[in-house]
This record gives sequence, structure tokens and C-alpha cells, in this order.
Amino acid sequence: MEMKQALEQLEQLQKKLYAYTAAQSSLYLDGVTVAPRDTAAGRGVALGILAGEQHKILSDPQVGEMLSVLSQAQEQLTPEQRRQVELMGREYEKLSRIPAQEYMEYAMLVNEASDVWHQAKETNDFPLFAPLLEKLVEYNRRFAGYYDPNKAPYDALLNEYERGANMEQLDQFFAAVRDKLVPLIHAIGEKEQPDVSFLHRHYPVEDQRKFSDYLMEVLDLDRAHCTIGETEHPFTLGFNSRDLRITTHYLEDDVASSMYSVIHEGGHARYELDVNPAYDYTCLSGGSSMGVHESQSRFYENLIGRSLPFVQAIFPKMQELFPQQLGDVTAEQMYRAVNRAQPSLIRTEADELTYCLHVMVRYEMEKQLIGGTLEVKDVPQVWNRLYKEYLGVDVPDDTHGCLQDSHWSGGMIGYFPSYALGSAYGAQMLRNMEKDVDVWGSVARGDLAPVTAWLTDKIHRHGCMLEPAQLIQAACGDFDPTVYTDYLTEKYTKLYNL
Amino acid sequence: MEMKQALEQLEQLQKKLYAYTAAQSSLYLDGVTVAPRDTAAGRGVALGILAGEQHKILSDPQVGEMLSVLSQAQEQLTPEQRRQVELMGREYEKLSRIPAQEYMEYAMLVNEASDVWHQAKETNDFPLFAPLLEKLVEYNRRFAGYYDPNKAPYDALLNEYERGANMEQLDQFFAAVRDKLVPLIHAIGEKEQPDVSFLHRHYPVEDQRKFSDYLMEVLDLDRAHCTIGETEHPFTLGFNSRDLRITTHYLEDDVASSMYSVIHEGGHARYELDVNPAYDYTCLSGGSSMGVHESQSRFYENLIGRSLPFVQAIFPKMQELFPQQLGDVTAEQMYRAVNRAQPSLIRTEADELTYCLHVMVRYEMEKQLIGGTLEVKDVPQVWNRLYKEYLGVDVPDDTHGCLQDSHWSGGMIGYFPSYALGSAYGAQMLRNMEKDVDVWGSVARGDLAPVTAWLTDKIHRHGCMLEPAQLIQAACGDFDPTVYTDYLTEKYTKLYNL
Repeated sequence: MEMKQALEQLEQLQKKLYAYTAAQSSLYLDGVTVAPRDTAAGRGVALGILAGEQHKILSDPQVGEMLSVLSQAQEQLTPEQRRQVELMGREYEKLSRIPAQEYMEYAMLVNEASDVWHQAKETNDFPLFAPLLEKLVEYNRRFAGYYDPNKAPYDALLNEYERGANMEQLDQFFAAVRDKLVPLIHAIGEKEQPDVSFLHRHYPVEDQRKFSDYLMEVLDLDRAHCTIGETEHPFTLGFNSRDLRITTHYLEDDVASSMYSVIHEGGHARYELDVNPAYDYTCLSGGSSMGVHESQSRFYENLIGRSLPFVQAIFPKMQELFPQQLGDVTAEQMYRAVNRAQPSLIRTEADELTYCLHVMVRYEMEKQLIGGTLEVKDVPQVWNRLYKEYLGVDVPDDTHGCLQDSHWSGGMIGYFPSYALGSAYGAQMLRNMEKDVDVWGSVARGDLAPVTAWLTDKIHRHGCMLEPAQLIQAACGDFDPTVYTDYLTEKYTKLYNL
Repeated sequence: MEMKQALEQLEQLQKKLYAYTAAQSSLYLDGVTVAPRDTAAGRGVALGILAGEQHKILSDPQVGEMLSVLSQAQEQLTPEQRRQVELMGREYEKLSRIPAQEYMEYAMLVNEASDVWHQAKETNDFPLFAPLLEKLVEYNRRFAGYYDPNKAPYDALLNEYERGANMEQLDQFFAAVRDKLVPLIHAIGEKEQPDVSFLHRHYPVEDQRKFSDYLMEVLDLDRAHCTIGETEHPFTLGFNSRDLRITTHYLEDDVASSMYSVIHEGGHARYELDVNPAYDYTCLSGGSSMGVHESQSRFYENLIGRSLPFVQAIFPKMQELFPQQLGDVTAEQMYRAVNRAQPSLIRTEADELTYCLHVMVRYEMEKQLIGGTLEVKDVPQVWNRLYKEYLGVDVPDDTHGCLQDSHWSGGMIGYFPSYALGSAYGAQMLRNMEKDVDVWGSVARGDLAPVTAWLTDKIHRHGCMLEPAQLIQAACGDFDPTVYTDYLTEKYTKLYNL
């Protein structure tokens, strides 16, 4: 095979994979937004077949041949082409080990499991979901062997979401976090809590929609390339760097819930919109890893969105939109309310401080599920025990317990630690950003442009050109979780006069 | 190849084609509903590739071999399998003649043309759309040769939407319709028109949505398998017999517009929901032809929906939902208002009587465009001339003229005659249905079940098992357009005391 032909094939292959991913994303998006209720079966048939076709395309021996031609001529390739060969090679090796039939069956299983999980959560019926979770665990364990037979299965899964992450590093990370945060949380428990009652006045959905529009503007999310929709669980879906979708969920008795969902998902969207558009339709598009992705969403949500200057900057607009509800409230009171730290039941509603403990529960359980030391039937019991142990709260039912998250039903085992890693990455980014940019001066003016410009330069624009660890290293130096725990200690010590 | 293997391949092939169609439908649906404005380019890349892949799958010589094995063993096949071999064979022959590259380029062109047409219509800018229409005409002319090189190009295109239809038959059909209807329309022109002012009072969208919900119930459209959405142009999209989507468009100053869109699209959905579910994921699913499909939508919309018994049956609910607007109106007045016959500008808003003349304008122009006797640049001028000639109306601008319909931008040239044929089929179905069922007694009770049961038995359940002409023949005997013109003559003679 000639170089030129191989390069053409490389480009075509990536475009094809983009098309299949877009197709599956579109069917998924339809399923969680506007599709009629009882239509998962037909969508499952289509999704299974498309996944199978995608598998066939990528694991075709001709792809292996093309990649090998290009690997042997590295010096003639651009850096982008070299990286494409590296990433596609990795996928090729992996998919070649997964039998096509299993891959298709897994796609159909995930579609079914999503549907059943929704029902199970709605009706607090863990046993309904359990047989599917069992199959998902089994598939993930088997797939871990295909991903990387030289790794412990859970390490192989972690690696899919955050390349380089492993249990050894995460055990240390979580231990360090726990050692610092648990005493802090205890100390806060002794203190008086701020008033949050005004967050729970009546906030009509119609007005909250206008507030979302405003937040989209603050994040500079161009509506011609990024829409906001409404789903039970907020998420971000990117088709390419010119086509992003975020969703939120409005609670009429909690203005902060959708507010921080919009900023969080907006951060994910900001990342993908800022990736070099030349990477569209190639494997270099999108975020470098789930951890880095979460670092961006949580950067906008917490480090910026829950800072005093930001709350002060947007508070006049909040008062304008909600004059009845916030007329008697100050920006400072709002800042304290959205930062109340209190152990609670639901991860997505958790505050910045206790959030990591929610992730730890899931990390511990996933390790054991994949390791084989925890059976699916015991999930609710162990979940409830760990929530008591780590967070000190009693779980009233599985809907508010082990059925709360969609991840496992989507087949994502090994994803959760990304949230905690992302938070820690973010703190390091902030400290480095502060050296280069007048972060708080511009945030106080409601101007996020310098923040976004720094993140775009250091993180966003690179897409998947770098491994997550390289990207973090280049932007902030060595990964150091104490920056994160120091940040939290400082913030909460001030907030609670500890 | 063994029979058993060939049959398995036949099943797999059809499932695959279903998956690709579902993927493309989903991307299309997204594009016309929730996608951000400037995202057509990325969707076009995906749609082009998926169309190309679908083409490759279907035109694979192995498919030809499989079909030939099965053709030679017809007597061992079930009737369904025989029909599948026939239909797939037809598609295989056709696609084998279309070069893959052209097929892909065409899919991308259609995606772009849709986008540009939207803009052109919005800004009354035909020259913006003209270069794309030129390309679409050119592709359609070329494709006509691939579809059937033995036919005149426009006949080959007609055949894609209504198998068996041709210019000879349609010229006769339209001449017969024109001879009967034009004098009728003239006679009506001399008469006093009914009051329609109450249709144009203020009907808030929120209340119209409730009215749509009610109409969906009347049509027995199960919301777990059929949703109703909102788009600029109402349409129906079916993924399979358990997953239908209809859309409507609300005008606050015209209650009849969305009302009859819902009933029309509901008729399309009713058809597909009633197809034998065993045909799902095969080429036997869906409607037999565009003409038969339109016969069903227009049956519910006009023959039932614009009948006096139907209007009387639903009028109490209309008054309940719109007490301010309809408190001083009678069911009889409503019946007369929704049946006002008056030549107008917009096809989709046209009354039952003048509708065919709108179709004739398009038919004449398509014949000439494909025949090469009309240049795209002259389309507005000829359009306006024909509207004056056939309907006696002056077209104020292209937005309300030749840019009004989405069909051409979607590459559908040869589709329009289906609307007129469908109307004529419907009239024949009604006359035959009346022999078997107490149509008007049950409609007067607001009960459409016997009507739907008859249509399901004669038409819906068969899916694509029969050719359109066979289906009509079996349900109603020989096609006879005078049944249609007699129906209209009788209805409008009474309505206007002619």
C-alpha cells in the first residue's frame, strides 16, 4: 500500500467512525428526549446493528495494514497524523480483540438496561434492574480483558475513561482527600449553617428558562451551535465542534439545581466548542479524557460558578428575573447558600466539599463488583452502609440510593473516579491561571473571556492530541492533589469561620 | 450458497437497511426539530457517509447472488419471503446502477439544499435556492436513467413514489379532474361564501395543544408509540410500526390549520401503526406507496375530518376548549367554514376542492423541468403564470409561490401527483367502505374504530405486500377518478346550493 493511499484511508476511516457515532448519538438523544415511551426495542435493534457495523469497520484487517504502513513511515507524517495513527491503532488493537457479536449484544444490552433502569428508579425496584446490572458487570469484566489483558480488570476499565489512571494511584488520591476533608466536614458540622430557604421559594420554570438563556450568554455559548434542552438528567452531547447540545432539569422549588447544571454542562460544551475545528471528523476531536472533561465542567461550575465574585456579578440579573423570590436577599447570602456544605444523599445535588465522598462510595463498589468480591444482589445493602460510613446519612430507598445514577445502566463502570480527578485537576488549573490572568477581576465584571481563553489555550484547543497526564503536566506541572484539598480547606475555613 | 444461509442473509440485510434508515431519519428529525441553527454541515457529512454505506451494503454483488439463489427457489419461500426477494431485487438492480459516489453526493446535496431552501423561503430569495435546485434537477434526471432506463425520465421518477404511475395516465387523470372541477369552482365563485371569521379569532397555542391531544385520542393514536411535536412544516416520520412521530404547526389566528394537520399526519401514522408488526425491520414495513399513504392521510383529513357528522361529533369538545372563541358558533357553521372553497396561494392551506389544482401546477412544472423545456431560472415566472391560469390568483412573492413547498429541496421530484392520486383513491375507498360499515353512524358518535378497522383490513395491515394498484384493486375495484369528481361535485353542490 502506498503512503498516499494509506493517508486517504486513514481520513476516510475516521470520517466513517464520526458518521456512525453521530448516528448512534442522534438515536440516543432522541431516546432520552422526544421519543415515545415504548419504543426502546426498535431503537435497540438499530443501535445494535450500527455498533456492529462500526466494530466491523474498525477491526477490518485492512485497517491494521494501513496503520502498519503509516507507523513505519512516522517521520513523513504531521504531528496530527502521527497522533491519529497512535489513537486509531489503540482502538484497532482493542476492537480486534472484541468479538463483533459480543460488541453488538453489548450495545443492545445497554439500550435495554437504560430503559429498565428508568423504570426501576421510578418505582424504587432494584430487583427489576439487578439482572441487567449483573450482565453489565459480566460484560465489563470480560471487556476489561479485551481492553488490556495485562492489567487488573478494573484498572483496564479505569483506563478507558482516564488513560493512566489505576487503583494504586486512586487509592492514594482518595485516601489523601479523605484524610483532609473528613475532619473539615466534621468541623463544619459543629457550625451554624447558612440560610438556604430562599433557594427553595417558588421559581417558575418559564423564568428559570430565561435565567438559563442568560447563563448561556455569560458562558458565551453561541446558540447557533449549542442548544439547551430539558431532560430528566442533565447531560452534554457533542456531534462535532460546531454542534453541541446541553440539557438541564428544572425544579420549581430549587433555583440552584438547574443553575449549576447549566454552568456544569456549559463547561463541557465550552470545551468541545473550543477544540481546533480542523480536528472535526477525526479521532482528535472532543475531550482528551473524561477526567479532563469533568475538570472543565466542574471548573466553570464550582471554581468559577460558586466563587463570590461570580455570584456577585450575576446576582443583579437573578434579582431582576426573580424579584419576588430574591428581593430580600444579598449576593453574599446567595454565595453562602450555594456553598452550604452538608452531607446528603444525591451526588448530583452534593456540594463542592462532600462531592468526593459520593464518588468514593461508587469507586469502592465498582472495584469490588469487578473484582468479584461484591455480588449485584448486595449492592443496595453495601451502598447504604458506605453512605452511612462516609457521609453519615441514612438512605431511605434505592431510588435515592444505588439507583440514583444513570452511569451503570449505560455500561459505564470506571467512569466515576473521573469526577473526583477532574475536580483536583481544576484546582491546579486555577492556581496556574491566576499567575497568568486577572481571573477574579474579570469574573467580578461578569467577563469569563480571559478564563475561557486560558483554558482554550492550555486545554480545549488540543482536543485529543495529548494524553490527559501530558495535558495536565503541560498546563499545571505534576499532578498534586494537595492543591485541591488546600483549595477546599481555604475556601471552607473562610466560609464557616473555622 | 444454501437456501438457509441465503434466507438468513436476506433477513440480516433488511435489518441492516432498517438500521441505516433509522439513523438517517433520526439525524433528519433532529435537524428539523431541535438542532442548533448552524449545524447542517456536520450533519451533512454524517448523512452522506451513511447513505454511501447503505448503498454499498445493498449493491454488494453478494446480495445479487443471494437474491438469485432465492429467486430460483421461489416455491420453497413463504409469500412474505417471495415479496421480500422481489422488492429487494428491485432495489438491488436500481442501486447497482447508481455509482456510490453519486449516491453519497446526492445525500449531502439534499441536506444542504434543505438548509438553503429554509433561508431562501424566509428571505424570499429564489436566486439563493436556484443553483441548488438546478443541481437537484440534474441529479434527478440522471437518477431517472438509473431507476429505469427504459422509461421517460419523469415517468421513472413518478414510479419511485407511485409504482405504475406515468404521464399518460396522469395527463388523463388531471384533465378529467380539471374538466369537472373548474366549472364547479367557477359556479362557487358566483355564490356567497360562508363566514369563516371565527376560525381566525385568537386561539392560544397552549389550548390548541390540548385540542391536538384530543384529536390524537379520537384517532386512537397511542402516545406510548406515537408522539406529536411542533415543526415549521408538519410531517410524519415512522421508525417502525411501534414508533411513529407526527408534527404540527400552530397558528394562533387559525384554529383549522393545526387541527387538519394533526388529522392528516395522524392518518399517516394510523397507517404505519396498523401495518402487520411482523413486517418490522423488513422491506414489507411502512406504506405501499406515497399515493396510498396520502390516500390515508387525506381520508382522515377530508373524507372523515371535513364531513358534517365528524365536525358535529367533535364540536362540543371544541367549544369546551375554546369557549370564548366558539361560544356563538354552531357545528353547522364550523362545518361550512372548514369547507369553504376558494382558490388560494398555499397548497397546504388549500380546501379539498381546489387542492388538486395546486398539485397540477407542480406536476406541469416538474414534467417540464425534467423534460428540459423549463429552466430553473424561469421557475418563479412560470409558477406565477400557472397559478393565475389554474387558480386565478396573483402570487405576491416567491415565499408564497414557488418556494412554499419543501419537496424539491428534499430532492423529491415526482412526489406531488401522489397527493392527487391519494385523494382519488380515498373517495373510492369511502364508497366501498359504506357498503360494509355504518361509516356515518359511527363517525357521528365520534367513533372512528369501524373506519380504521376497515382501512386496516383492506390497506394498512398489508404494508408493502402488494403493489399500490393491486391494493386499490383488491379494496375498491378498478381505479376510477370519476368516483372522486362525483364525490366532490355532490359535496360542494350541497354546500353551496348550486
